[in-house]
Amino acid sequence: MPATTVSLPFDPAGIVFDRRRALARQLYQALRQRMLDGRLGTGTRLPASRVLADALDVSRNTVTRAYDQLYAEGFIVSRVGDGTYVSDLRHLSTGLSTGLSPGISPSLSTDRHSRTDDAHSESGITEALKRLSTQALALPPRTPSRAFRVGVPAFDLFPFKVWSALQADFWRHPDPALLGYGDPAGDPELRELIAAYLRGSRGLLCTADQILITQGAQEAINLCAQLLVPEGGAVAVENPGYRAAAQAFAANGANVLGVPVDKEGLCVERLSTLDPCRAVYVTPAHQYPTGVTLSLPRRLALLDWAERNGGWVIEDDYDGEYRYSGAPLAPLAALDRQQRVVYIGTFGKIAFPALRLGYLVLPPRLVAPFVQRRALAVRHSEVGTQQVMARFIAEGHFQRHIRRMRRTALCRRNVLKAGWPTDIPGLATMPAVVAGLHVKVDVESPALEQALIESAGAAGVEINPLSGYWTGPVETAEDRPAGLVLGFAAVPESAIAEATMRLRKAWRTWRVPEAQA
Amino acid sequence: MPATTVSLPFDPAGIVFDRRRALARQLYQALRQRMLDGRLGTGTRLPASRVLADALDVSRNTVTRAYDQLYAEGFIVSRVGDGTYVSDLRHLSTGLSTGLSPGISPSLSTDRHSRTDDAHSESGITEALKRLSTQALALPPRTPSRAFRVGVPAFDLFPFKVWSALQADFWRHPDPALLGYGDPAGDPELRELIAAYLRGSRGLLCTADQILITQGAQEAINLCAQLLVPEGGAVAVENPGYRAAAQAFAANGANVLGVPVDKEGLCVERLSTLDPCRAVYVTPAHQYPTGVTLSLPRRLALLDWAERNGGWVIEDDYDGEYRYSGAPLAPLAALDRQQRVVYIGTFGKIAFPALRLGYLVLPPRLVAPFVQRRALAVRHSEVGTQQVMARFIAEGHFQRHIRRMRRTALCRRNVLKAGWPTDIPGLATMPAVVAGLHVKVDVESPALEQALIESAGAAGVEINPLSGYWTGPVETAEDRPAGLVLGFAAVPESAIAEATMRLRKAWRTWRVPEAQA
Repeated sequence: MPATTVSLPFDPAGIVFDRRRALARQLYQALRQRMLDGRLGTGTRLPASRVLADALDVSRNTVTRAYDQLYAEGFIVSRVGDGTYVSDLRHLSTGLSTGLSPGISPSLSTDRHSRTDDAHSESGITEALKRLSTQALALPPRTPSRAFRVGVPAFDLFPFKVWSALQADFWRHPDPALLGYGDPAGDPELRELIAAYLRGSRGLLCTADQILITQGAQEAINLCAQLLVPEGGAVAVENPGYRAAAQAFAANGANVLGVPVDKEGLCVERLSTLDPCRAVYVTPAHQYPTGVTLSLPRRLALLDWAERNGGWVIEDDYDGEYRYSGAPLAPLAALDRQQRVVYIGTFGKIAFPALRLGYLVLPPRLVAPFVQRRALAVRHSEVGTQQVMARFIAEGHFQRHIRRMRRTALCRRNVLKAGWPTDIPGLATMPAVVAGLHVKVDVESPALEQALIESAGAAGVEINPLSGYWTGPVETAEDRPAGLVLGFAAVPESAIAEATMRLRKAWRTWRVPEAQA
Repeated sequence: MPATTVSLPFDPAGIVFDRRRALARQLYQALRQRMLDGRLGTGTRLPASRVLADALDVSRNTVTRAYDQLYAEGFIVSRVGDGTYVSDLRHLSTGLSTGLSPGISPSLSTDRHSRTDDAHSESGITEALKRLSTQALALPPRTPSRAFRVGVPAFDLFPFKVWSALQADFWRHPDPALLGYGDPAGDPELRELIAAYLRGSRGLLCTADQILITQGAQEAINLCAQLLVPEGGAVAVENPGYRAAAQAFAANGANVLGVPVDKEGLCVERLSTLDPCRAVYVTPAHQYPTGVTLSLPRRLALLDWAERNGGWVIEDDYDGEYRYSGAPLAPLAALDRQQRVVYIGTFGKIAFPALRLGYLVLPPRLVAPFVQRRALAVRHSEVGTQQVMARFIAEGHFQRHIRRMRRTALCRRNVLKAGWPTDIPGLATMPAVVAGLHVKVDVESPALEQALIESAGAAGVEINPLSGYWTGPVETAEDRPAGLVLGFAAVPESAIAEATMRLRKAWRTWRVPEAQA
């Protein structure tokens, strides 16, 4: 036990480490146990990692890892500019399961048994099951689109008449050979067309054999989590970044390490300071959510890292079709000479998210294992959507629609920029938007971020806080700049103009509280 | 080292066990290593488990487990009535990945590193990835249907005109609220309709909240494998049984234990003789592939096992709509009072497999973890297929189509029965078929099974050997009855009559070789 006496929200004497085993895991388990049995109650502020490390005589890294795991699982929450707190565990249940005893979440009701032999525990719910919790899920809302929802394209422009006719055509007399069990890698025609599209529009020299059709980008990310990162292995993600990716890695047992992002994108040099990573997940074309483009030197450094370390680079090109000015940089997959890059594309940002159609471009040696894993997970994708998308591309509708979507997004971006308030103290001007469907605007403090978002919400305008995209616990606000993230493509220009008007009005009358300013 | 001297196809002296660690795993690794480096060459016959156990001074159970793992991964194959052999590892690659060096499969090219630190291995391919191999995959062929393909319904009868019109209707003016990100549990309307259908037609008292829409039964099985069986935990499956289920469990790290099936279905009493299982996967309505219905005493015994052991029963009701005579037994899920049964249904056997639409009925406390896992895996299912199926059900097409499919399958079954040869020595008569889409006919020996199937194949008739459905290595043929498995629903009566005629002709002229008879 350490000599220093500090004020902790729980009795550290009960935490005894077996120094031969992984300390972070033991600390994680000890803290989780205390949260579950109430010794660490809802809303309790956790000590800073430095303080707890001193108190327990372990490294700060050990504490950070334990906190990260608890955070990924939803046991603790971070409050911007404040600290880390025990979550309200009673709300871990989604409320979907009406038969569940009130206040008992699936993870809670079984975690009592975590010290008993799993195989004989009364409930028999596994660790994998326990690992999941609602709070760890960053799913977007399911209400009709409004300004400035993030991640949603202008699907009001999608040519549904064409799509409807193609669907009707396909289903009227489908080829019987297509109705039995299909290719787990996806419809061969669609794969050919995607490969041709990527070669032409992205300079990505790939063949149809390398394409694996997925149920959107999320399935692609999940497959990478299952196949490229071993249980307990480390994966680096951008921080701030796409939380549903980090969560998929965590749900599959990976140790998720956040790497900072600066004006050139992911700070690749930081990879060497981390635990050896098996993979890095990046959004190089238009970093999610900051909008930064990964610079060429960083791209080369990242590929170099992968080659030297035998690591994998997972390149999520989620909105790569939207580029408004400047020559787009080649995707990492196009620069990759050692076949260490897995490329993820999606139709969700060009068509609409509910289509659930995406794809992976895999290095040849990864094709067979990915296809096999997918076959065991889902066999293959539904035939109609794939065939109809293949015809949609083959008949030229897809390329036409991309051009239209790009023009539209550009117009909507311009309306947002024109209407953006310029006289709010602490709120930056709108940056130049060269790509993508959303923009991040800097704000001088977390308090201002929160205040602006609340005020916008009260005026009926949806804005995401940059603080919602961080991985791992927040200990000091200084490390984490504040900002607003706005999707500008989802609704028509008139709605954008009206929303900016409401924002100007709401924020003009609003004043930063003295204490926070 | 053991005192007995036996003739082994490899030098057992090199296999040194660390007795503190799991022996089966070490043996598996040692054998795999020898197969990869060529010391155990293609086609080498492995010693019987008893012999190897004696030679290595380990239990027979240790050897069986190691063999099971090698078998699940495709490293070894069983030949009916013969023995267990090292696979032709050069064929482990699917051939999909054209860029792969010839003869080097993904698992092989990386397995060299299995002794080095995973995080630093040159290739960086993980254990999870290595675990997969093409030979472990039991995927059906992708050619047009013919007699007597198993697992395919009469999709020539599906009302595609109706389906086409519903698709066209839905897509012409889709509700924008349905086009963004949807409910990971599935379309609420479809879930309501499925719950109502199950209450009415199966006596399964469930609510829409308990329904989780999946991409066919395979995704449902895979989710169960991920959430109900911990890594290294045991799951019992029917033997013979549905291999794609066993493979999904194995791919997710479970220890798959085959349990015999007799005239009453799964031998439930055998569960107590196995390692403690976390879950049992069963096809009670119409056992796959033997066609046996799980008797009521066995059903109750299975539920009792689940309650006493805190285990899960995974009930795959893959062709439950097809029942031709007798009152159907209540599904296990309807008898379950302790909420330990997970029910799997699919539209693939009523509509067509390429639809990839199935569902889980979950005990309330499992709903949230399953939904969350699915959200991270794929977010949700494509909206159109779900909405169109909901309308298809709501407008009565589904129930009408079930009745039509049932009548048709019955007719086709009758034609098969009428045309089945009755004068082949060693081939049993066609049993009464009370349910399902396929039938198993007994054959007196594995040699006859193989001969009949080859002869049928030469006559253009597809028949599956019962030996293709066993889990684990075959050591003695006596344990494993031979048989033919025939799907009778896939093609029209005329094609069935013609196929039986060809069979009668082919088998009449054919004689069992003296040596095998």
